[in-house]
Amino acid sequence: MTADSTAALLVGVDFGTLSARAVVVRASDGAELGTGVGEYSHGAIERTLPSTGQPLPPDWALQDPADWRAALGTAVREALHDAQANPAAVVGIGTDFTACTVLPVLRDGTPLCEVAELRCRPHAWPKLWKHHAAQPQADRITDLAHARNETWIARYGGRISSEWEFAKALQLLEEDPDTYQRTERWIEAADWIIWQLCGRETRNACTAGYKGIFQDGHYPSEDYLGALNPAFADFARTRLAGVPLSALGSLAGTLTAEGAALTGLPEGIAVATGNVDAHVTAPAARAIAPGQMLAIMGTSTCHVMNADRLADVPGICGVVDGGIIAGEFGYEAGQSAVGDIFAWWTGLGVPESYLEEAAEGGQDLHEYLSSLCEGQPVGAHGLIALDWMGGNRSILVDHHLSGVIVGLTLATTPEDVYLALVEATAYGARVIVEAFEAAGVPVNEFIVAGGLKRNRLLMQIYADVLRRPVSVAASDQAPAVGSAIHAAVAAGLYPDVTAASAAMGRVEQAAYVPDQARADLYDQLFAEYRTLHDYFSGRPEWSGNAVLHRLRNRRNGAISG
Amino acid sequence: MTADSTAALLVGVDFGTLSARAVVVRASDGAELGTGVGEYSHGAIERTLPSTGQPLPPDWALQDPADWRAALGTAVREALHDAQANPAAVVGIGTDFTACTVLPVLRDGTPLCEVAELRCRPHAWPKLWKHHAAQPQADRITDLAHARNETWIARYGGRISSEWEFAKALQLLEEDPDTYQRTERWIEAADWIIWQLCGRETRNACTAGYKGIFQDGHYPSEDYLGALNPAFADFARTRLAGVPLSALGSLAGTLTAEGAALTGLPEGIAVATGNVDAHVTAPAARAIAPGQMLAIMGTSTCHVMNADRLADVPGICGVVDGGIIAGEFGYEAGQSAVGDIFAWWTGLGVPESYLEEAAEGGQDLHEYLSSLCEGQPVGAHGLIALDWMGGNRSILVDHHLSGVIVGLTLATTPEDVYLALVEATAYGARVIVEAFEAAGVPVNEFIVAGGLKRNRLLMQIYADVLRRPVSVAASDQAPAVGSAIHAAVAAGLYPDVTAASAAMGRVEQAAYVPDQARADLYDQLFAEYRTLHDYFSGRPEWSGNAVLHRLRNRRNGAISG
Repeated sequence: MTADSTAALLVGVDFGTLSARAVVVRASDGAELGTGVGEYSHGAIERTLPSTGQPLPPDWALQDPADWRAALGTAVREALHDAQANPAAVVGIGTDFTACTVLPVLRDGTPLCEVAELRCRPHAWPKLWKHHAAQPQADRITDLAHARNETWIARYGGRISSEWEFAKALQLLEEDPDTYQRTERWIEAADWIIWQLCGRETRNACTAGYKGIFQDGHYPSEDYLGALNPAFADFARTRLAGVPLSALGSLAGTLTAEGAALTGLPEGIAVATGNVDAHVTAPAARAIAPGQMLAIMGTSTCHVMNADRLADVPGICGVVDGGIIAGEFGYEAGQSAVGDIFAWWTGLGVPESYLEEAAEGGQDLHEYLSSLCEGQPVGAHGLIALDWMGGNRSILVDHHLSGVIVGLTLATTPEDVYLALVEATAYGARVIVEAFEAAGVPVNEFIVAGGLKRNRLLMQIYADVLRRPVSVAASDQAPAVGSAIHAAVAAGLYPDVTAASAAMGRVEQAAYVPDQARADLYDQLFAEYRTLHDYFSGRPEWSGNAVLHRLRNRRNGAISG
Repeated sequence: MTADSTAALLVGVDFGTLSARAVVVRASDGAELGTGVGEYSHGAIERTLPSTGQPLPPDWALQDPADWRAALGTAVREALHDAQANPAAVVGIGTDFTACTVLPVLRDGTPLCEVAELRCRPHAWPKLWKHHAAQPQADRITDLAHARNETWIARYGGRISSEWEFAKALQLLEEDPDTYQRTERWIEAADWIIWQLCGRETRNACTAGYKGIFQDGHYPSEDYLGALNPAFADFARTRLAGVPLSALGSLAGTLTAEGAALTGLPEGIAVATGNVDAHVTAPAARAIAPGQMLAIMGTSTCHVMNADRLADVPGICGVVDGGIIAGEFGYEAGQSAVGDIFAWWTGLGVPESYLEEAAEGGQDLHEYLSSLCEGQPVGAHGLIALDWMGGNRSILVDHHLSGVIVGLTLATTPEDVYLALVEATAYGARVIVEAFEAAGVPVNEFIVAGGLKRNRLLMQIYADVLRRPVSVAASDQAPAVGSAIHAAVAAGLYPDVTAASAAMGRVEQAAYVPDQARADLYDQLFAEYRTLHDYFSGRPEWSGNAVLHRLRNRRNGAISG
C-alpha cells in the first residue's frame, strides 16, 4: 500500500433480504467510519404482485429491482454522511448480495419486470433466494444428473437446490414460456447491481459456481439441459455464458456517471466484481486460510471455508474453485434455521414473570433465558433436540424434515428447552464439521460472524460441542466490510484479498475455548443426537423412521384440504 | 328398597390429596343434596417435617392423620348444612381414600406419629401415595418375585410399585428399624379412617389386593419376605393379617359415639368398608359391567374395569378378585400424567395475546386453546407426541421415561402442541385398551369421570382415537357419590352395589361417538405413535433406543452434582 493511499476510503454495500447496508471503511486498517441503511420499499414480495395485486402461489418470493437501486443510493449517502467523509476520498465500491436471487433481463440489463407489457407477469420479476416454488424442477435436475452420472452433481453434495439458477429458470420456462422467450440474460442480482454501477455485464465466480453449476470451466451441457426440457437445451449458452467469469476482488469496471449520480460517489472509481453476502464476509473475519470455517449465524447459518484440495463432501451446498477467494477451493454448507428456532421458541410464549423480570433487568428475552441457563451442568435439563424446525440444509439436504424434542418432563422449564435448542444447533454444526473431516477436509477453527455472535452462552457451547476454538468477527457489519475489502483490492490498494484481509479484517481470535470437562460430556450427548439424527432422517441406509416425512405429507394434505 | 327408606340419606366422603369432599345423597335416586369440603392444614408434606422442621429427603411425601380427622368433621358438617338435611335422616356413611397412603399404628389404631417420642421421626408419619423414595425396595421386591417365580407378580403387570404397602414398609424397616419395631399394624389410610368411625380395625379387599399383594387368599409368603430381609419375614403375618378382608359395600361396623361427635351424624348408623377413590367411582358412573372401562381423568388417569375372567395383562397396575365390586375381577391401569401435561404446557407460557383473548372471552387458557383447535383437520399440525412427561405407568411401568414431541416446525403454534399433547394421552389410553384386548379382556365402552370430562375437544378425540363410545359420569363428585352408594349397600337399602348403582349412579351414555373419517386418520397416526412408543421405550425386544433412560440418569447425576 502506498503512503498516498493511507487516507483512501472504500464503500462496501451488503444487500440483504429486506434492506441494503453500507459502510465507509478506511483502506489502511479497515476502521469503520460510518454506516447507512436503505430499506426495500416492497421487502420480500410473497403475497401479491405489486403491479397488479394478484395473489402469488405458495412458496413464491420476489423482489423489485427498483428497491435495490433506491436502497443503494440511500445507504451509501447515509454512510458517507455518518462518516463525515469527503466522497472524493472514496476510491472504490464493493457489493455483496443474497444468493441465489436471480432475474430475467434484456441484453442491456433492463429487468423484464420493468418492460411495460411484462410487468404484470410474476415470472418477469426477480426471484428472491427463498423462492421455493421450483422444487419439482430441482428434483428433476438432481435426478437426471445422477441418472446421467454428471460429474458436477457430487460438487453439490449430491443435490441441486430449488433456490438456484437452473431450477428457477426451468420453472420460468415451463410456467411462462412467453416470458422465458423474452429473457435475453438470466443474471444474479449480485452481478446485476454491478451492471448498474459500471455499465457492463460481468459474472462473478462465486454465484456462477455455487448457484449456476459452473464447474471445471463449463455449465451443464446442452445434451443434459435438452434432456430436462428440449426448449432448455440452449439456456446456459444463450442466457448465462458469453461473459468470462470474474475472480472475486477483481475490477468489474469503473463507476459510470449514472452510478455516480445514484450513489453520490465519484465517477471513475473502482467497482469490484459482485459477491455473495456469506462468502464476502470471510476476509472481513480473517477466515480465509484452509481449515478456518466461517459461520455467518443469524436466522440461519451459512458455513464457508477454503481448502487447498477438492473433495466431495456429501450433503454440503457446494465446492467451487475460487468460490470464496481466488486460488482456493471454497466450500459452502448451511443450517436452514438457527436464530429462527430460538425466536420460534420464545414466540410460543414464556411465563408472564419472565417478561417482567427481563424488562426489569433491561434484557431482551434471549438474554434473559440465556442468563437462566448460565452455569447449568451439561445434561441437567435431560433433553436432546433435533434442530430441524426449518428443515435440514446440510448434511441431509431435506426441507421436509422437522424438529424433535426428547426428554421432556413436568419439571422442564422454558429455559431448559431454550438451552437444548441452542445445543441442538451446535450439534447440527458438528455434524457438518465431521462430514468435512470424514471427506479429508480438515476444520481447525470456527469463526463466527452475524448477529448470534453476541450470545456468549451460545458461543461457549459451540466451542465445547465442536471441541475447537471459536473466534468472533469484530465487525457488526462484516459482510459490508468484506465488500469494502474486495473494493480495496479492485482499486489496486492491495495485491490480493489475502493481503487486504490481513490489513483490514478484524477478529477476536479464540474468544472462546473448549472447556474439556464440558466437552467430554457434550461428546456423549452428541452421540445421542447423532443416533436420533440418523433415525429421524428416515434414510433406509441408517434404518431410519420416515415418520417426519409422513407427518409433513399428512400436514400438507390436511392444510390444502 | 322399602317405602320407608325412600327419604333415607347417605353421606359419602372422598379423601383426596389435599382435601376431603363430602356429599349428602338421597338413597332413592342418588340425587346430590349438598356438598362440603375440608382442607388438610398440612396438605402434602414434602419439604419439612411439621413437628421438627427438619428437611425431608427427595421424593418423600407424608401426611398428618389429624388433618384427615379434622377435614372429615368439617366436610360432613358443611355438606349437611348445604343440603339443609336433618342428620337423623342419614342412615349410613361411606368413604374412599387415596391409595396407597399407608401408616404405622399401635394395636389400638393410634398413629405412631401421635406417640410423643416418635413424633420427631419422619418414618412414623403416614406415607402419601406419591411418596416415591422406596424405589430401591420396590425394585428388589419385583426382582426377587421374578427370580422365585412368585405367581402373584403377573397379577401386577410384572412389577410392584414403589408406591405400595410392601415397598414403603421395607423402606421403614431398613431406614428406621426402631420405628419399625414399634409398628404394631401397617394400615392403609382407607382402613384407618374406618377405624376412627366404627372403632375397629377392618381391611378392605381393594387396597389389600391392589396395594397389599393379597392374592388367592394370601399375602406373600414368609419365605419370600425373609429373603428380602430376614427381619421382614413376619411382616405380613404380624402387621397386615389377622383381620378377615371385607368385601366392598359390606358393613364395617356402626358409627361410634366418638365418630358421631366428630361428624355430627347419628351414632349407630352403618359405616361402609373402606375403599379407594378411583375404584369407588365405578358404581357412581354405572361403569360396573364387564367391558366398561372407567377412566378417572384429572392430573393423571386411573383406569378401572371389571371382567368375569382372570387374565394376566402385561403392564397394568393389578387385577384383584372383588377389587372393584364383589364377584368380579377388577382390573386397574393408569397414565402417570394427563391433565398435568396440559398444565405443564400452558405453564411454559403462551403469547401475551392469548391471555388477553382468553380473558376477553371469559375462558380459561385450556378452554381458549381448545377452542383454537376445534375443527382442525386430523394431522394438520404435523405432530406426534409421547405423553410420558410424568413417566409411563401403563403399560411400560417406567417412571424414568420422559416426553417426546416430533414434527415441530417454525410454523408450529402453542395450540398445535396442545392438541398434539391431548392426542398423545388418547394414544396412551389406546395402548392400554389394546393391551387388555390382546390379553383376551374386551373393552367395549370408555366412561370418563374426573375434571377433564368437561373438555369437549378432549372427549371427542378420545372417542375417535379409541373408536369407542365415550360416556361421561354425570356427577362432579363421582367418588364421593360412589362412597355414598357403598354406604347405601352397607346400610341394607340395596342388596348389592350393582343394584345400588342402577338406582343411584348417573351417566350420560355415549355422550361422544367416534367420527368414522377422523377415526380412520387417527388409526394412521396411532400407528406412528406406537412405533415411536416402542422405539423410545428402550426395550431391547422392540429394538428400542434407551436414550430416555440415559438422559434421565445424566440429568439426575447433573442435578445431584
